[in-house]
Amino acid sequence: MCRWLAYSGSPILLEELLYKPRFSLIDQSRHARMGVETTNGDGFGVGWYGLDGTAPTVFRGVGPAWGDVNLRELSASVSSPLFVAHIRASTGTPVQQSNCHPFRHGRWLWLHNGSVRQFATVKRDLVLAVDPELYPFIAGSTDSEVMFYLALTSGLHEKPVEAVERMVGFVEATGRRHGVEHPVQMTVATTDGDRVWAFRYSSEGNSRSLYYSTVVHTLRDMYPDNEILQRVSDETRIVVSEPLGELVGAWQPVPESSYGVIQKGADELAAFRPILP
Amino acid sequence: MCRWLAYSGSPILLEELLYKPRFSLIDQSRHARMGVETTNGDGFGVGWYGLDGTAPTVFRGVGPAWGDVNLRELSASVSSPLFVAHIRASTGTPVQQSNCHPFRHGRWLWLHNGSVRQFATVKRDLVLAVDPELYPFIAGSTDSEVMFYLALTSGLHEKPVEAVERMVGFVEATGRRHGVEHPVQMTVATTDGDRVWAFRYSSEGNSRSLYYSTVVHTLRDMYPDNEILQRVSDETRIVVSEPLGELVGAWQPVPESSYGVIQKGADELAAFRPILP
Amino acid sequence: MCRWLAYSGSPILLEELLYKPRFSLIDQSRHARMGVETTNGDGFGVGWYGLDGTAPTVFRGVGPAWGDVNLRELSASVSSPLFVAHIRASTGTPVQQSNCHPFRHGRWLWLHNGSVRQFATVKRDLVLAVDPELYPFIAGSTDSEVMFYLALTSGLHEKPVEAVERMVGFVEATGRRHGVEHPVQMTVATTDGDRVWAFRYSSEGNSRSLYYSTVVHTLRDMYPDNEILQRVSDETRIVVSEPLGELVGAWQPVPESSYGVIQKGADELAAFRPILP
Amino acid sequence: MCRWLAYSGSPILLEELLYKPRFSLIDQSRHARMGVETTNGDGFGVGWYGLDGTAPTVFRGVGPAWGDVNLRELSASVSSPLFVAHIRASTGTPVQQSNCHPFRHGRWLWLHNGSVRQFATVKRDLVLAVDPELYPFIAGSTDSEVMFYLALTSGLHEKPVEAVERMVGFVEATGRRHGVEHPVQMTVATTDGDRVWAFRYSSEGNSRSLYYSTVVHTLRDMYPDNEILQRVSDETRIVVSEPLGELVGAWQPVPESSYGVIQKGADELAAFRPILP
Repeated sequence: MCRWLAYSGSPILLEELLYKPRFSLIDQSRHARMGVETTNGDGFGVGWYGLDGTAPTVFRGVGPAWGDVNLRELSASVSSPLFVAHIRASTGTPVQQSNCHPFRHGRWLWLHNGSVRQFATVKRDLVLAVDPELYPFIAGSTDSEVMFYLALTSGLHEKPVEAVERMVGFVEATGRRHGVEHPVQMTVATTDGDRVWAFRYSSEGNSRSLYYSTVVHTLRDMYPDNEILQRVSDETRIVVSEPLGELVGAWQPVPESSYGVIQKGADELAAFRPILP
Repeated sequence: MCRWLAYSGSPILLEELLYKPRFSLIDQSRHARMGVETTNGDGFGVGWYGLDGTAPTVFRGVGPAWGDVNLRELSASVSSPLFVAHIRASTGTPVQQSNCHPFRHGRWLWLHNGSVRQFATVKRDLVLAVDPELYPFIAGSTDSEVMFYLALTSGLHEKPVEAVERMVGFVEATGRRHGVEHPVQMTVATTDGDRVWAFRYSSEGNSRSLYYSTVVHTLRDMYPDNEILQRVSDETRIVVSEPLGELVGAWQPVPESSYGVIQKGADELAAFRPILP
Repeated sequence: MCRWLAYSGSPILLEELLYKPRFSLIDQSRHARMGVETTNGDGFGVGWYGLDGTAPTVFRGVGPAWGDVNLRELSASVSSPLFVAHIRASTGTPVQQSNCHPFRHGRWLWLHNGSVRQFATVKRDLVLAVDPELYPFIAGSTDSEVMFYLALTSGLHEKPVEAVERMVGFVEATGRRHGVEHPVQMTVATTDGDRVWAFRYSSEGNSRSLYYSTVVHTLRDMYPDNEILQRVSDETRIVVSEPLGELVGAWQPVPESSYGVIQKGADELAAFRPILP
Repeated sequence: MCRWLAYSGSPILLEELLYKPRFSLIDQSRHARMGVETTNGDGFGVGWYGLDGTAPTVFRGVGPAWGDVNLRELSASVSSPLFVAHIRASTGTPVQQSNCHPFRHGRWLWLHNGSVRQFATVKRDLVLAVDPELYPFIAGSTDSEVMFYLALTSGLHEKPVEAVERMVGFVEATGRRHGVEHPVQMTVATTDGDRVWAFRYSSEGNSRSLYYSTVVHTLRDMYPDNEILQRVSDETRIVVSEPLGELVGAWQPVPESSYGVIQKGADELAAFRPILP
């Protein structure tokens, strides 16, 4: 199990979300409240976009996030309008930088919580389906990264939702061919620096938790004295594995088997339906 | 907070205690049950004596014990008649090898769970009291290591119990001079490879948990089918921060403000009384 | 480029070869004399067999060998009749434990110095040829580990030399199909705990250096005052990337395109001929 | 031995100096040309000031700089008008983050190449002379950090040059009292974010190399086609342990026993004279 967050909105220091809230992501690295595993100490990563349109910067470490001095330093000096962060609890693959999220390809970032069940059994078939041009870019050994490369192979750049639906359909078909009852458990975030897509799905219909923040103007009405809420833009939005902070009414669960898109203008929320190969 | 164990008896593979029992020390690195902190993921260390009378070997790492592949390997191949292990939860000092327990000086090893309260305030006075000949050997920045060097300065080699009582008395006097109400909280193990001394003490009379194993022949009577109990010698004894395994009756609490000595012949258990400087 | 050694003979402490000789392997991590790269600071590993016939223990680290405190500790306490050691200079793949040598499968260990040229180009084809039963055991991302799994697929357990010849023939054929002029550069050691096989080969016929030690009784005659030589058995033999120590006449180059076998009775040295698929 | 650089001028990406020049600082981590030690692989650090006047950010790692993926990432995204970088070759103290340069106190950064000779012998006396208010901030175990805290104790904030002269005078007097012939070997850089002071001194009058860049308008005349030189401001200045790049005439040696100040308006260069206590 892992925990992650994605932020899009007015540029803020990373520490505003990673460290300052009660139940912050860094708190969750030691004491998650909602996960199947309370400790997420097998590495971490953050990825952020600047204001200049270049590819995102990624910083990843193999120790527990709670004790990483460099992460603390960077979070207090890096400001970004769109960033993601992830804390890892390994399900068996090695604790190494190349297995830490976010994974990056070009301008795209990818984060995953969950697992491809019996990954050792199905890995070869999944990897074979990755576009041979993309294959050499797989650097680590996780199920999460293979899911990313399968999604890229399925057209993530052009039709992100459909690509993820095809990826999940393929993983489910492959798993079932190998006798795996519930092949996929996931919450996933992916972004190209403009929009963020967040997915909540599992083959068994009982997915890991995922929440998105209530629209800012509603929260401002509810909490007229909250200083940060006054500062951030109307379009600011956060997606998280489990709620940060203590503001009642600030978080909405992403429904089972659905996805959301954070973007300029109205955000979207719709049903997620795996597409069989 | 930290967790530790000390083993003395028939040579066994380290993994017999570190990994195999339910609630093993490595389990406790992720999920301690009795501590003030459930996660002990800020490094670890083991120290073991061979059968040849040489100085102990120490292996220490800065990542969480639960994920350390080398610790897993070594534990399955190193056998020892006397070894100690420690998992660390930093109370503020850096996560680095030189701050991991056990600390070693010559043939002596030292493990500590607890803290010198307001250590930053009293550290200079404590360090100044260390024998200038020993001072250069202080390699890290923890309160635990300074306690060890104060105990060495107070004659740990000659009269271990008295030396620890003098060390604690000095730390308490120093703390109180600086306005610290309860300067010392500790369970400590120290060994020269022949005997093991274990201390449970705190200025407030409410010390961290500590247990020692019931004598082996009693346990054999209680559990005639337990294979390991049949194998180990009568003098085998374990001291632990919290019980390992599930054998009812296998563990006795070390009383508040007392110490025990594991040695050839009858072990000892007596009151611990700090000696003021 | 990397450096490695393999030792077979009377049980000795690892430090006798890793630290004590002038130009020891650990010296070479900072200052190799004969390699294309003078620094081998991208991780290290040792693997050793005990006297009890069990599978070998492996200890690997990602920092430079010259500064690893745990390696220093273990080398002074672990004694073995058959061990291997490797210091790594990455040719591009990540510096992570799963990419450090030796690689292990069951009782077998594998070490490599050199490279599969344009590995990113040919990796997919090579990995596809690994036995699907073995595929899930590939843990890292190096060319060296893929060579090991191809050799295992080709029957390393049964006919080690032929298996390596088949592996090299397959890598060469695959590389050439992709337009790689000289696909393979290697010195390789592999062992099952009884025998050690050492290979020196490159497609261009200009392989990395490799040496084996002169037979012990000859060396004893040459150096009657050398204490270690008097102690070790007649069958003791070492294979190294570059000579250790300063004894003139102690090392013989392994000829280009050949292999040696260290075993009970007479050792072997013969021509190495890749077998095309 | 170590290598370092300090940059002050038009904001540039860190990678412009750390990675892009031939003989860049990162190259020097593997192959320094002018030092007593060619490998500087025992950790590294960078410290940079933003445009907003806040305290500097510090990023330090314990592995070799040449292989650090996070350093590569950050260097390509962090831009700064004043930054320092350091690659370490330990002279015996542990390889750990708290021993990596730059050291920081408030707005001040400190970098050192060289050593306090027989540091274990004089350390206690030196540490005792640190202001007790500052003592708790000493986090590591190096001579370099103790020199920094002695300089702070001597008034680094108010009169930087005099403070460093007092620090060196004190270290020399202390060393000589303990029979050390040449107690100090150093090049040092320190900065408060506005100015940079660089010192070159050794008790034996044979100090480690140090260079400063020729004034920009002279270089522009010499190299009218060099694009970077056209871009940076007239006041841009670099100080380095050994020259970067290949521009003939770009670097001037700092004379033996002298110091320079990089500041708005004319820079300074003057004699350095230790002040005895």
